[in-house]
Amino acid sequence: MSEQYHSTQQRISIHPSVLEMYEKIHADGISNVFDRYPPQEKIRCNFCLQGNSCQLCSHGPCRISDNAGATLGVCGIDRDAMAMRALLLLNVMGSATYTHHAYQAFRTLKSTAEGKTPFEIKDVDKLKFMCSKLGIPTNTSVSEMAYKLADALIAELHHDYDEPSKMIDAFAPRYRKKVWQELAIFPAGVLYEISDATASCLTNVDGDYVSLGKKALRLGIATIYTSQIGLEMVQDILYGTPMPHEVEVDLGIMDPDYVNIVFNGHQPWTGFATMKLANEEKWKNAAKAAGAKGIKVIGSIETGQELIQRAEMSEVFGGLTGNWLHIEPLLATGTVDVFAMDENCCPPNLAPYAKKYQVTLVSVNDIVRIPDLKFAFDYKPPEAAFIAQKLIELGIDNFKHRRQKVQPTVPKYKQKAIAGFSTEAVLKALGGKLDPLVDVIAAGKIKGVVALVNCTSLKNGPQDYVTVNLAKELIKRDILIVAGGCGCHALEVAGLANLDALSLAGSGLQEVGRALGIPPVLPFGTCTDTGRISMLVTALADHLDVDVPQLPIAVTAPQWLEQKATIDGIFAVAYGAYTHLAPPPSITGAPRLVKLLTEDVEGLTGGKVAVTDDPVEAANGIETHIMKKRKALGLS
Amino acid sequence: MSEQYHSTQQRISIHPSVLEMYEKIHADGISNVFDRYPPQEKIRCNFCLQGNSCQLCSHGPCRISDNAGATLGVCGIDRDAMAMRALLLLNVMGSATYTHHAYQAFRTLKSTAEGKTPFEIKDVDKLKFMCSKLGIPTNTSVSEMAYKLADALIAELHHDYDEPSKMIDAFAPRYRKKVWQELAIFPAGVLYEISDATASCLTNVDGDYVSLGKKALRLGIATIYTSQIGLEMVQDILYGTPMPHEVEVDLGIMDPDYVNIVFNGHQPWTGFATMKLANEEKWKNAAKAAGAKGIKVIGSIETGQELIQRAEMSEVFGGLTGNWLHIEPLLATGTVDVFAMDENCCPPNLAPYAKKYQVTLVSVNDIVRIPDLKFAFDYKPPEAAFIAQKLIELGIDNFKHRRQKVQPTVPKYKQKAIAGFSTEAVLKALGGKLDPLVDVIAAGKIKGVVALVNCTSLKNGPQDYVTVNLAKELIKRDILIVAGGCGCHALEVAGLANLDALSLAGSGLQEVGRALGIPPVLPFGTCTDTGRISMLVTALADHLDVDVPQLPIAVTAPQWLEQKATIDGIFAVAYGAYTHLAPPPSITGAPRLVKLLTEDVEGLTGGKVAVTDDPVEAANGIETHIMKKRKALGLS
Repeated sequence: MSEQYHSTQQRISIHPSVLEMYEKIHADGISNVFDRYPPQEKIRCNFCLQGNSCQLCSHGPCRISDNAGATLGVCGIDRDAMAMRALLLLNVMGSATYTHHAYQAFRTLKSTAEGKTPFEIKDVDKLKFMCSKLGIPTNTSVSEMAYKLADALIAELHHDYDEPSKMIDAFAPRYRKKVWQELAIFPAGVLYEISDATASCLTNVDGDYVSLGKKALRLGIATIYTSQIGLEMVQDILYGTPMPHEVEVDLGIMDPDYVNIVFNGHQPWTGFATMKLANEEKWKNAAKAAGAKGIKVIGSIETGQELIQRAEMSEVFGGLTGNWLHIEPLLATGTVDVFAMDENCCPPNLAPYAKKYQVTLVSVNDIVRIPDLKFAFDYKPPEAAFIAQKLIELGIDNFKHRRQKVQPTVPKYKQKAIAGFSTEAVLKALGGKLDPLVDVIAAGKIKGVVALVNCTSLKNGPQDYVTVNLAKELIKRDILIVAGGCGCHALEVAGLANLDALSLAGSGLQEVGRALGIPPVLPFGTCTDTGRISMLVTALADHLDVDVPQLPIAVTAPQWLEQKATIDGIFAVAYGAYTHLAPPPSITGAPRLVKLLTEDVEGLTGGKVAVTDDPVEAANGIETHIMKKRKALGLS
Repeated sequence: MSEQYHSTQQRISIHPSVLEMYEKIHADGISNVFDRYPPQEKIRCNFCLQGNSCQLCSHGPCRISDNAGATLGVCGIDRDAMAMRALLLLNVMGSATYTHHAYQAFRTLKSTAEGKTPFEIKDVDKLKFMCSKLGIPTNTSVSEMAYKLADALIAELHHDYDEPSKMIDAFAPRYRKKVWQELAIFPAGVLYEISDATASCLTNVDGDYVSLGKKALRLGIATIYTSQIGLEMVQDILYGTPMPHEVEVDLGIMDPDYVNIVFNGHQPWTGFATMKLANEEKWKNAAKAAGAKGIKVIGSIETGQELIQRAEMSEVFGGLTGNWLHIEPLLATGTVDVFAMDENCCPPNLAPYAKKYQVTLVSVNDIVRIPDLKFAFDYKPPEAAFIAQKLIELGIDNFKHRRQKVQPTVPKYKQKAIAGFSTEAVLKALGGKLDPLVDVIAAGKIKGVVALVNCTSLKNGPQDYVTVNLAKELIKRDILIVAGGCGCHALEVAGLANLDALSLAGSGLQEVGRALGIPPVLPFGTCTDTGRISMLVTALADHLDVDVPQLPIAVTAPQWLEQKATIDGIFAVAYGAYTHLAPPPSITGAPRLVKLLTEDVEGLTGGKVAVTDDPVEAANGIETHIMKKRKALGLS
């Protein structure tokens, strides 16, 4: 473990841009996540940290303490069920938020089919692909197909228990379906699974950690197949399927002379709508009349990733700033006119930044609210153009005040990344078939593939420390990374998603990367693209006619923060993947549960959880797993 | 406050039957809720207790501590949003569990329409009433109406945001709908509200306590109108609308010489199916062949209340044992052959009871699991008869072992109660119209009506101490009580739901009770019947052409335990009711939130929360409120 990692000094970031901005924020006396972390660390409760605490009913809060004679909660629940129940509730939260996104996607597709949005059907091939997968006739008009697909996907969300889900049937790996049926974790639609998993967590309903664990697996499957995959495919239909292209990232992309409208969150509707409107002469002129060089749409965190996956850098699109620990530093640059918040992660304490650095905060999503919010234009598809116009008007107005009031501070750091990978993009790079990928894996040039899907957290190091160092360890060992989420932005900002980074890769991966013109880390999008990443793996498994646990693959979330990560991680286990999670989830005080998730579940799904905060140790575990799977497949 | 209440001695129960059984359980060395409570009280965390703690993301657990310089969570959330978010998550859990029940009800109706269950359409008038409320033609066959009603109610569960809910439109009080629209808390179907409320609680989504509070109100409305009312009406259609009749309650109803099959939870399907089957000669003979006098279906907690609301005491139905703190004492009587668990509240640590007192534990519900469970027959409507048969077989088998192995201990306590009230029953007692009720209220014979809907908890006193003493205070003051939930069972067991109890009532209520032949406490069913109780109040408001907050009514949950109670309480506030809650929810460390719920919300919905653990103080608050409302209506 490196010295930096063990250092007791305050945890900030591995990114110079964030370090620089932190100094400014701190000097300006503004509350920030980096300064809020250390005091919490001093007063942290070990009962909560280890999962030995429950706050659900009026008999509590209860703790498990053998010394105090409290070996069970008042209701009688044991430590393992208590911890798994709390974890399942986190899973539910992640699932519900993905589902909110999915519903908005399907609704947007439907409204677009009706001609009520500024969007169009950009990828008709994908529309037809999805229709044919779900048994919707493809001999009708594009609008009719889109309308019917939207309805079918909405119906999948609340698909009940009496018939199997069409989406799972269409997209799950061939051999997984049977495994899931035998384990009784083949789910209904995600809305029912969310509701029933939550009901199971009620006081005195499910007190068995194994049963609760299986419900989590089931919810994970429902989330990926009935929420995530549909929503990502619909976004491809509306905004184009990602294809590789070069983009710019990090805080250095900010130009204070533009009206900068930043989109932060996960749902890209208003971002795309604003980009479209910003191209109109009328608005360009309005910005210029206010003294600006023009209008720039800027992507922050996952919304930013959705945008850079599909949009080229342009006069109206400025790239991606970084992940969620970049948010407060970004606002402090004094370059942001509108900060439009469209889902998580929109931290609650932004009002002081708005005031100090002259930012107009706007929620563009019905579930997003923060204190002292002045503007909320909750997205409904037919209002996309209206909201875009409002954001531009607010941005131009803010620009005038900002330029008078605030001295901008833009860190000089800017990085190139090749964004825009997808199963289709990989297939295209391979000449339309998977065999070349199989060949380089078989030849050992690529030992295996790791999906790094992740947030960023200060819990186990400075921002992105574990993520970036683990990625470096993996590519050095000829393991290809497909990345999603805030961890993906971390790798882009750290310069691992461009061709120069091939010099950090092992010789085999380097050779393959140079031959195909791809970096050692392939940006696959956001945490929502867990589903998209699984589609690539599913294609590989089905192509080889093997089950997922037989493949030389793994999943890692090296610095997970929030609840979406937990449901993605649980899905990975259901999917049959070796799944590295760090920091450890709050279940360490539940020994049987730990054993279930790190050992016994392998006998059920083929997947399991591995926990370590050390990047080298994590890479060792992943490589060992991949080599074991290679050997079983007869590969050296 | 009474001495008993202030006593520092261990909190057990006000019911002699439970006190007696506690002594036995304790002497037998079996872990029980009464013995598990005191050690937890010693190690309870004040941060959690006051809502100043968050366990959601990997940056935490966080605490709010001004002394430690931790005035915000790491993400930046403040103490008010932190507490409201945790409360909203509890609300969601309650809502989800009601919704699980609702879905099973609608599915059961549908299967019954198809002739696939042992049930029949018992109340055709109510079926027609519901169909006409939802615009379903009533000129078709009973089966067709039932099938279409089931489909319409399932559709209401996942009704999206684009059209108003038919159930709310049909059942909400006239003037409430506008209030809810203006506050933007008019909800979609409950499945979407559950999912979106949960998504709002994700880290960095909704950090505003007012917005989170409004989401809770909205979820409350969705729960009552799209889950609860439909499910209760469907249960009436299937098993009959409750009408008053005398039943027996408390542990003294147990007869060890019978094969006793106890149904515990909330969902009555398998209970009714078993009662039907137990009437068959074949099974009576089988029980007798095993040495039993026969087979008795016994109701425990809410399932028991569902049964006694509709079934007469009979050869095969033995009445109700009590509420959830009666469960462990009941099992220890050595009289239970099968304990069939069909939803909450099924405490997790029952295996030691099963072993010691020879009980066969069975889950008959897909969400219910406890450690060491040997039998699970998850209810699906077409399997109701099959499950009933399995339970009887298991019961007969258990009986043989039990009679050999266990010496029964049955407390002698048994009480009469008049169960079976409903809006229809009240109307019937009043001669078909509400005017006589209005007249006695106007004349001050009844000052007002209080809905007591409740669990039971040791947090603020022995089992049912606050509930029973508050009820006594209220009826003494000529306030009529309509009761639901475990609190209703408490009042039944305590003898307040029979005609003898009129002697404890004030002279006005006594006079009305004797004239109509009704007790001072009217058992309206379970906590699920919150919706049913609201129907009576809505009828009264609409009859008088006033809004709910103008009525001399109130709601109390004097010993709430779990999450269903929290969503009922929140609904009561949205509904416009003065709502007494005890013990205080875990929000006392959130001063602005406390002010919002106890003061400011009255300006929004007309309802508000009042908190006190003292029965007399609670009665004073309720009476003051009722008198204020009477005065505003021009009544003395």
